[in-house]
Amino acid sequence: MIKVGIVGGTGYTGVELLRILIQHPEVKITTITSRNESGMDVAELFASLRGHIDLKFSDPSGSALDQCDLVFFATPNGIAMQQAEALLDAGVKIIDLAADFRIKDIAEWEKWYGMQHACPELVASAVYGLPEINRAEIKSACLVANPGCYPTAVQLGFLPVVEMGIVDTNHLIADVKSGVSGAGRKAEVHTLLAEASDNFKAYGVPGHRHHPEIRQGLTRVAGKPVELTFVPHLVPMIRGIHATLYARLTKKRKIDLQAIYEERFATEAFVDVLPAGKHPETRTVRGSNICRIAVHRPQNSDTVVILSVTDNLVKGAAGQAVQNMNIMFGFPETLGISQIPLIP
Amino acid sequence: MIKVGIVGGTGYTGVELLRILIQHPEVKITTITSRNESGMDVAELFASLRGHIDLKFSDPSGSALDQCDLVFFATPNGIAMQQAEALLDAGVKIIDLAADFRIKDIAEWEKWYGMQHACPELVASAVYGLPEINRAEIKSACLVANPGCYPTAVQLGFLPVVEMGIVDTNHLIADVKSGVSGAGRKAEVHTLLAEASDNFKAYGVPGHRHHPEIRQGLTRVAGKPVELTFVPHLVPMIRGIHATLYARLTKKRKIDLQAIYEERFATEAFVDVLPAGKHPETRTVRGSNICRIAVHRPQNSDTVVILSVTDNLVKGAAGQAVQNMNIMFGFPETLGISQIPLIP
Amino acid sequence: MIKVGIVGGTGYTGVELLRILIQHPEVKITTITSRNESGMDVAELFASLRGHIDLKFSDPSGSALDQCDLVFFATPNGIAMQQAEALLDAGVKIIDLAADFRIKDIAEWEKWYGMQHACPELVASAVYGLPEINRAEIKSACLVANPGCYPTAVQLGFLPVVEMGIVDTNHLIADVKSGVSGAGRKAEVHTLLAEASDNFKAYGVPGHRHHPEIRQGLTRVAGKPVELTFVPHLVPMIRGIHATLYARLTKKRKIDLQAIYEERFATEAFVDVLPAGKHPETRTVRGSNICRIAVHRPQNSDTVVILSVTDNLVKGAAGQAVQNMNIMFGFPETLGISQIPLIP
Amino acid sequence: MIKVGIVGGTGYTGVELLRILIQHPEVKITTITSRNESGMDVAELFASLRGHIDLKFSDPSGSALDQCDLVFFATPNGIAMQQAEALLDAGVKIIDLAADFRIKDIAEWEKWYGMQHACPELVASAVYGLPEINRAEIKSACLVANPGCYPTAVQLGFLPVVEMGIVDTNHLIADVKSGVSGAGRKAEVHTLLAEASDNFKAYGVPGHRHHPEIRQGLTRVAGKPVELTFVPHLVPMIRGIHATLYARLTKKRKIDLQAIYEERFATEAFVDVLPAGKHPETRTVRGSNICRIAVHRPQNSDTVVILSVTDNLVKGAAGQAVQNMNIMFGFPETLGISQIPLIP
Repeated sequence: MIKVGIVGGTGYTGVELLRILIQHPEVKITTITSRNESGMDVAELFASLRGHIDLKFSDPSGSALDQCDLVFFATPNGIAMQQAEALLDAGVKIIDLAADFRIKDIAEWEKWYGMQHACPELVASAVYGLPEINRAEIKSACLVANPGCYPTAVQLGFLPVVEMGIVDTNHLIADVKSGVSGAGRKAEVHTLLAEASDNFKAYGVPGHRHHPEIRQGLTRVAGKPVELTFVPHLVPMIRGIHATLYARLTKKRKIDLQAIYEERFATEAFVDVLPAGKHPETRTVRGSNICRIAVHRPQNSDTVVILSVTDNLVKGAAGQAVQNMNIMFGFPETLGISQIPLIP
Repeated sequence: MIKVGIVGGTGYTGVELLRILIQHPEVKITTITSRNESGMDVAELFASLRGHIDLKFSDPSGSALDQCDLVFFATPNGIAMQQAEALLDAGVKIIDLAADFRIKDIAEWEKWYGMQHACPELVASAVYGLPEINRAEIKSACLVANPGCYPTAVQLGFLPVVEMGIVDTNHLIADVKSGVSGAGRKAEVHTLLAEASDNFKAYGVPGHRHHPEIRQGLTRVAGKPVELTFVPHLVPMIRGIHATLYARLTKKRKIDLQAIYEERFATEAFVDVLPAGKHPETRTVRGSNICRIAVHRPQNSDTVVILSVTDNLVKGAAGQAVQNMNIMFGFPETLGISQIPLIP
Repeated sequence: MIKVGIVGGTGYTGVELLRILIQHPEVKITTITSRNESGMDVAELFASLRGHIDLKFSDPSGSALDQCDLVFFATPNGIAMQQAEALLDAGVKIIDLAADFRIKDIAEWEKWYGMQHACPELVASAVYGLPEINRAEIKSACLVANPGCYPTAVQLGFLPVVEMGIVDTNHLIADVKSGVSGAGRKAEVHTLLAEASDNFKAYGVPGHRHHPEIRQGLTRVAGKPVELTFVPHLVPMIRGIHATLYARLTKKRKIDLQAIYEERFATEAFVDVLPAGKHPETRTVRGSNICRIAVHRPQNSDTVVILSVTDNLVKGAAGQAVQNMNIMFGFPETLGISQIPLIP
Repeated sequence: MIKVGIVGGTGYTGVELLRILIQHPEVKITTITSRNESGMDVAELFASLRGHIDLKFSDPSGSALDQCDLVFFATPNGIAMQQAEALLDAGVKIIDLAADFRIKDIAEWEKWYGMQHACPELVASAVYGLPEINRAEIKSACLVANPGCYPTAVQLGFLPVVEMGIVDTNHLIADVKSGVSGAGRKAEVHTLLAEASDNFKAYGVPGHRHHPEIRQGLTRVAGKPVELTFVPHLVPMIRGIHATLYARLTKKRKIDLQAIYEERFATEAFVDVLPAGKHPETRTVRGSNICRIAVHRPQNSDTVVILSVTDNLVKGAAGQAVQNMNIMFGFPETLGISQIPLIP
């Protein structure tokens, strides 16, 4: 068993990490920190955990994080970069669920995240934790940048056609929709039930932080610069991301998209390609680490439509983080994250 | 005041027509028919109308529809085409909220709606009731085909750029999202709250009935064949349509999209172009006949993103039908349909 | 037409007042104040009002409230009591939608609202604005305390049996359920969609501010002290209050509860007693000033069950305030507040 | 490992049984029957189970249910009673999740369920499967009647005070609220999202099938006839039951209700008594077999308020059924049903 610490355990990715790690057979959670709730029983804040955990939130300053084998940062952006170096020096591995180590271009990162980066030299060595692309690098990584929720669903959806070079990568379109938990457990007016329920809206059309992250990832896959239009929307539901992806085929010859998708993900435990003609629903992955994908070519036109769904808190955050942990520590990749989705 | 009949008053467009027409100063509702609820007080089926209406549903057979000045068909597809000829011969004007008279190409209609058309000769003379495009024809029409909910939001959104011929009309993309009331007041498993709530999915990607209707409308506007990819989605909310539209600019020179949209709709009472940079929310049109539109050009690329929202039961159905009625009978176009949206 | 001012127009009761007053034929809104949004167009904050209002929020300090005939306070508790005296002295009538003037017992008020009352002497002269009980006093009032949302639904529900003295008023039970808009447009964690959606909970069982208000009102009706158990719950919906009321009959003889309720409210425009055996739904009053009530006596036991529903923002706040305004200024009581509920 | 069959696997209790049993270490599911979906892959109907199950629905007639050690009936009422005798004769144990064996009084059962009972002689020997009351009998039972969802939450909530005889059992009140999945996976208008969402209503106030079941259970606990007023409500959420229970204390002396509840359930793995002053939320038991209870005595009056929440599909149906199975077959009672609730 490994000793695991969680920094910032009071948000949605925090409680989701707890739900998964508590039942993980190779993990012992030794520390959970919170600046604001220090001293409070974890199960008092999250009544769903009553009877399953007997820890208190500890103050970040006095915590024994450096005694851990692995520390998850489930913090706002800009925290992990302050503490990473010391922990790595102490031999502790790190998985950051925030954005501090996701973007290789420091200037680009600083533009989108509105702060100066505290340890640019670590960014280069950080591994982007999307196992379906980077499994080998993750295995030997000490510092993993866990992908954002939108980027996971979008990159997995585009992956086969971009890898094969059969679509116009100058004009990809990602029309993505997210449940409200993606905005986190923060008191804000626009995500109140009375504001966000019985409503639908796009946001961030002029620009969104996940845009450069997706572009960077697909550019690496394509081996050349990729351009995409990225439009996020807010859905009146708690969990779930649905990416509707559009790409123009560049080859006129007959292509069996269904076969391409099935083959690409044949050995991936957490990517499920639906039978031809089907449409994935976000609820079919609720509470699970699965990404379900369907690929369509309506009216046999040259526009491919890919539908990709995940649970933003699991495959889009905590579940993928544990998947990365399993890879980093040599556990079976699916260990502790094969929960069956909750329907209805 | 004109005498108005409603055929099929037990669905969502029916009750919405009633809500609007009851308070319309120039309308007297004389007949509401329903095969199944014949004899029942309308206010027993729809308790929201208690105290506002004193009519019973009457059987279609014995009803005095031919005494009306105007009859609305709020029926399933395939009903209006059975009765239209007799009513028109009796001098009654007709607005069909179903699809019977929307598609000019009879073979195409029969393919999508799965039945033989009962009066193909009337289809040619029917006027497509989208006032922002067809106002003049509607004014003198006896038979109006009220547009579908998706087609209204999509056509209004694309209208300015397609009219001006500044986008590639061979590759339009309409990623549209609808509240569940769009599926009607029918007992079905997939629209149960326990199925559709806390969930998001695309459907009908291989083909949808509103696709040919939109293509027909935009083709007429463009003056040449238009091709679009149309992907509808189901949103866990009651009312509202959000169309996210993508088009590639064909002219490289500088174009002021905001000005183009504002000018095109400057005199339209029911189309509201938002200030640059804004995103419309479906709730800001809830219960109203407004279509709100925003136009974006993210990262100054050549892909235009248009956001268009309506209330599917008002501007997408009953409200637009009354707007058409106002035009046909010479009433002020906004009479009885200027309700303020209900927020929150 | 009267000149009307609104203090604190950025919350849900504020926007609801605007929706109603904009279309009220006897009202001209001259001033809307907001400390935080001063200078902003009202229609920028509330896009639903675009095209319907051309006012900006003004700073409370420099505003011309004393030029109004009537000022509504749609503010947090504790604001109206600071400004009431000066306005009344200037001949301005006041309707306070907050709680400052609802409780006659100053000590009790101070206990529940956690502050010292600024003008206890005005409390005695304030009229409690529940027209179905206090219509005559409201007519001549200068200062009206508009009732809370729970108290409106509960008092109207209990009114007939308490007035007649046929139930045990020492053990009334009010099990009440509210939509989330009742908590206001405030950034708080517990009313986020991701917290409050797909969830149900009671709150405030040990004590709630509306408890003494209801007790005071029913005590006055009963002519003797009334005791009740009051349990509020949060429902994952936007608008609506459902009160389920329990009372033990004290008379063993046969009582026609249905007739008692129908008679009591026969002349009330805004109370609708449903036919025997029916259950009111909150959506049947959505956006309207109606209170619908059903009375049951299950298994003919001695426990009466009364079901009472309102829209918390209309009959429970802004609509009732305008009803009070109509009475105070001699307008027809239903003027401008007979909107038909929005279904579905 | 035992061989388990499921009759009627296409409803919500069916898919929930599958979710739990698939991961139960002592169970092998050998047969799932469905009259309508016979021949279809289970994972085609429930995409959430893709990759977790490789069975097809089989026709009830040709199925090998008599080869099972245990058969669950997740069928509509009236099915299990047709097949129970033959299976019991074949040595197969039965847990019926429907109502066929819950009510001992056959005439009462026939009145509420509207059909003649097919095997009244088996009803007497059936054991009511509420482990917290009947554990010993369940251990040796061959035929278990799994309790209804409302009766589970209500009986567990009232249990301590009724057992101790400290409340007036002639006037209990159960004000209960259920998520929509309680109505099952049936196409009905009133549970459509467009009808049930953003809405709240009571139903069945004149009478409900779960009323006699609760009365029977509490009567047995009390050792004398119990009377209660039972008012169910529909909440716009998927899962969850919240019972708000009212009882009048009969003893005037000081009583420590908190201690009474904590002691009564001290050894119960699936009943969690919250600390004094807390309110349980349905989401804190979502997807789990836990019942959380809080007990209040507001204003120190003689009316006790008990709040009891469960997931209607788990502790109110499938989870409790597996708990009963564990007891019947000598497995640890919590085996396979200690999932942590899904929050948010």
